Amino acid sequence: MRVSQLFDPTLREVPAEAEVVSHRLMLRAGYIRKAAAGIYTHLPLGLRVLRKIEQIVREEMDAEGGQEVLLPIVQPAELWRESGRWEVYGPEMFRLRDRHEREFCLGPTHEELITELIRSEVRSYKQLPLLLYQIQNKYRDERRPRFGLMRGREFIMKDLYSFDRDEREAMVSYRKMYDAYARIFRRCGLKFRPVEADQGAIGGTGGSHEFMVLADSGEAAVVFCPKCDYAANVERAECLPRSVRTEAGGEERILVHTPGAKSIEALSTFLNLPKHRLLKALLYQGDEKVFLVLVRGDREVNEIKLNNALGGFIRLELAGPETVRRVLGAEAGFVGPVGIPDDLTVVADLEVPLLSQTVCGANKADYHYLNAVPERDFRLDKVFDLRMVEKGEACPKCGAPLEAARGIEVGQVFNLGTKYSKIMQATYLDETGEEKPCVMGCYGIGVTRTAAAAIEQNNDENGIIWPVAIAPYHCIIVPVGAKDAQVGETAEQLYWQMLGMGIEVVIDDRDERPGVKFKDADLVGYPLRVTVGSKALAQGQVELRARKTGATELVPVAEVAQKVQGIVQKALEH
Amino acid sequence: MRVSQLFDPTLREVPAEAEVVSHRLMLRAGYIRKAAAGIYTHLPLGLRVLRKIEQIVREEMDAEGGQEVLLPIVQPAELWRESGRWEVYGPEMFRLRDRHEREFCLGPTHEELITELIRSEVRSYKQLPLLLYQIQNKYRDERRPRFGLMRGREFIMKDLYSFDRDEREAMVSYRKMYDAYARIFRRCGLKFRPVEADQGAIGGTGGSHEFMVLADSGEAAVVFCPKCDYAANVERAECLPRSVRTEAGGEERILVHTPGAKSIEALSTFLNLPKHRLLKALLYQGDEKVFLVLVRGDREVNEIKLNNALGGFIRLELAGPETVRRVLGAEAGFVGPVGIPDDLTVVADLEVPLLSQTVCGANKADYHYLNAVPERDFRLDKVFDLRMVEKGEACPKCGAPLEAARGIEVGQVFNLGTKYSKIMQATYLDETGEEKPCVMGCYGIGVTRTAAAAIEQNNDENGIIWPVAIAPYHCIIVPVGAKDAQVGETAEQLYWQMLGMGIEVVIDDRDERPGVKFKDADLVGYPLRVTVGSKALAQGQVELRARKTGATELVPVAEVAQKVQGIVQKALEH
Repeated sequence: MRVSQLFDPTLREVPAEAEVVSHRLMLRAGYIRKAAAGIYTHLPLGLRVLRKIEQIVREEMDAEGGQEVLLPIVQPAELWRESGRWEVYGPEMFRLRDRHEREFCLGPTHEELITELIRSEVRSYKQLPLLLYQIQNKYRDERRPRFGLMRGREFIMKDLYSFDRDEREAMVSYRKMYDAYARIFRRCGLKFRPVEADQGAIGGTGGSHEFMVLADSGEAAVVFCPKCDYAANVERAECLPRSVRTEAGGEERILVHTPGAKSIEALSTFLNLPKHRLLKALLYQGDEKVFLVLVRGDREVNEIKLNNALGGFIRLELAGPETVRRVLGAEAGFVGPVGIPDDLTVVADLEVPLLSQTVCGANKADYHYLNAVPERDFRLDKVFDLRMVEKGEACPKCGAPLEAARGIEVGQVFNLGTKYSKIMQATYLDETGEEKPCVMGCYGIGVTRTAAAAIEQNNDENGIIWPVAIAPYHCIIVPVGAKDAQVGETAEQLYWQMLGMGIEVVIDDRDERPGVKFKDADLVGYPLRVTVGSKALAQGQVELRARKTGATELVPVAEVAQKVQGIVQKALEH
Repeated sequence: MRVSQLFDPTLREVPAEAEVVSHRLMLRAGYIRKAAAGIYTHLPLGLRVLRKIEQIVREEMDAEGGQEVLLPIVQPAELWRESGRWEVYGPEMFRLRDRHEREFCLGPTHEELITELIRSEVRSYKQLPLLLYQIQNKYRDERRPRFGLMRGREFIMKDLYSFDRDEREAMVSYRKMYDAYARIFRRCGLKFRPVEADQGAIGGTGGSHEFMVLADSGEAAVVFCPKCDYAANVERAECLPRSVRTEAGGEERILVHTPGAKSIEALSTFLNLPKHRLLKALLYQGDEKVFLVLVRGDREVNEIKLNNALGGFIRLELAGPETVRRVLGAEAGFVGPVGIPDDLTVVADLEVPLLSQTVCGANKADYHYLNAVPERDFRLDKVFDLRMVEKGEACPKCGAPLEAARGIEVGQVFNLGTKYSKIMQATYLDETGEEKPCVMGCYGIGVTRTAAAAIEQNNDENGIIWPVAIAPYHCIIVPVGAKDAQVGETAEQLYWQMLGMGIEVVIDDRDERPGVKFKDADLVGYPLRVTVGSKALAQGQVELRARKTGATELVPVAEVAQKVQGIVQKALEH
């Protein structure tokens, strides 16, 4: 491809709304343009990146026996009503009606459609296992679409659904996908980590892992053990309770005046006590019910764990000041578990019963209790692991101190169990003629998101640094010094030679200054650059530069194509 | 691929709603399943066919300098309001609102979005020509979706848009696409014909050709000249006027009683006159205006030509009986041009002025006029080519008798002129610094429709007969006689040998009777079948059968893979 013909409109300035580096660079380098909030046009370079990711995904799905299908984007509402998700999805689902007023949605996911297909077409255990996948647009009407391809409303995903005879076979499919995902992100040239994950609203009973591309800008926090293979999303990471040394309990509870000490921070300062000596008490509202939630003062509540522990509310959030006043007669900041109504359930983190005594709000403005003792001064109705893990804590598997990282979730594998197959009667007959529900799994990879995550992980102040396997092209040839006829000629010869060798190469044949060409090449992120200039050429040489390291070397003209091919092939090996 | 593992659910019975052969066969052979009216899931075999067509399309678009992009499916209403098509499209467009009540549609086509992109990114003549294309879902909310993939509501299209400096350059792009389309359908192995086409609602001022896959079941009628290269959709085909021998005119007009002779047919019988001696007069309503339209009694009005001649109404149709009564005081069936109101425009076909005298309705129930003479007894305000061409008429280019055929429109090339670029200000600066609108073209290929059309053209009572280039797989190996261990072994060896040679091969490893395997292989339509049976194998031979001709031959085991490869390679040559 010739840069003079390539439709690659670069930008000097990017809109202020582009908050993250992948969004900025994709706009600047001409990979995407915005069509509407969270909806993008993929320009030629951008589409090439997506197609490469798709092809890697496709090869690895096929390698595990996946069969590619294509389900509709426009899906009838009836199937979603049948699964019960038409209501649950809420405003995140794009909905529409056809000319006959029949209701449809734009598929955010395809469990319903694929389960309908399987219940119609699968009869016997002989047809299982079945792994069907597709790569196509998905839709989510995000409240705040942002970060470019990172959180769009129209985006490309690969989703595979597995159907198995039983849990044991389902775990085989799960493991196949887990391994395939690891191969995919490795082949894409990304630093990633599979972590144990919460299963969220998509449901199911088995396990789940998220595949995280590691990047400081990642939305997700993960912890991992440097000693064993444990890694988890902080939303999900198990916490071992740690007891802290306090005075022996048994002292009298004392009401103290703590004017204005509304936060743990302020209270700690006011009383000159470390935070772990205090108790954090928060009133939560889950749908219509309220709960008093207790964690140690130095801990954070993990709302995902809390919701799972309480059985899963559609909406779980901190109660507002009015609810706090109505239920406890207290001001937020002075809430505590002492003397509360009998019907208010107290849910405590595992560490709370280990406190010999603590300090808690008195449900009275500007007052706290000292020497409050769990189960003497207040109830603990339910005790769970409810807190957010912290860096340095003991690994729940081996006890080594956990490390923390940030990541971008690009894939997730789920064991769905029989959640959908039972509701929608996707059953098969086993060897004995007994009817059984298929055991399902679902496995997603965000293709557009992976492209964005690759940039978040691989960039510098000059632009994108593509891993070879997903770069739009592998090499750019830059002739500099237009006046020297031999420069242009050699560049053209190299271009045709490389094309003939199957190298994905572009030539910057524009009438621009070298500085402009180099800047654009760095911005777009071609992994290799071959500069053809008069001076080196006089010695029969050209300059080969690696985008990633910035390292340059002079290479004889006759050898450079071979060398480029060698570097590319090595990078694509897997 | 092993048939035992392939997700290919065949059907014995197909739903009655499957009216055409491609729909029936795609359901029976397990290529598609219906998800909703006009909305289908593509199963593994079906998707393979689509991907092959897409790849041929992609290669030929790239060969002409096309650059692939991906525009959104969900499109903001504002752009469609800007072009004026938000209203025009009517109920055919799927519309939706997001959570903030902003309006969107599911793109039925992408002129607006691409023009918006170009007006933002193109400044200079140096950036032109530009040929951008995409392959993705399109949406039309058809009133009566039917015929399977032939007329769906969600379907796959390739659409390319060209942007040029002027009409001359635009014709170069047009010609490139025309040639590429011819190559595409030739490579797909289809019998097709490019025909001159009407431009329809998509608009534009230049030329247009439709690419028709020839099939008796085709919705479109075309005429073509066996002597020269003229071919046209009947909607568009020019008609040379032919005069017919009649009595010399000049006789007195006579009112005759013709009870019940409401149709040309009945009148011809009643008066014992050939139809070409009668005049057909029809009252048409174009939006709010009415016209009296005249053609010879043996001719049909071509409403597309009529609408083009009258300047293009959004809605043009025969006036209802009440309008006929109000305007002419007459009953339908006895309408004529004599003595009509002065302000009613009379639009006549080219042949009408050539009639020396004729018979027409008297605008009075059960009466006609004999010896009515054009321009003596009635006005001809406008005279155009308004009639439908007929088989056997003279070719407008060379005069040879035209032949007729039926076809399925699978592609269309359009010269759009500056229709969209002017409305939406997609301009560029030419060498002199003058601002000019880009001249546009648009070029579509229905990918899903091409798959269906290929089946309409290539099938027999046993199933599909795929052209090699778009067959899901090229060859099926069928071992028969499970008791003979050597049969199974040889079949497996051949399977692995062919896989190793890059042949797209499946093996029917199911425990089924030979008859079932043969039936399924014919139904699915694999171009080549290799049968491994005990008898021939005893002689070191297997049977090779071509699906298309049914011809079989015995081939030595050691040679069959080579032979299959040769046949496939020859078929794919282009």
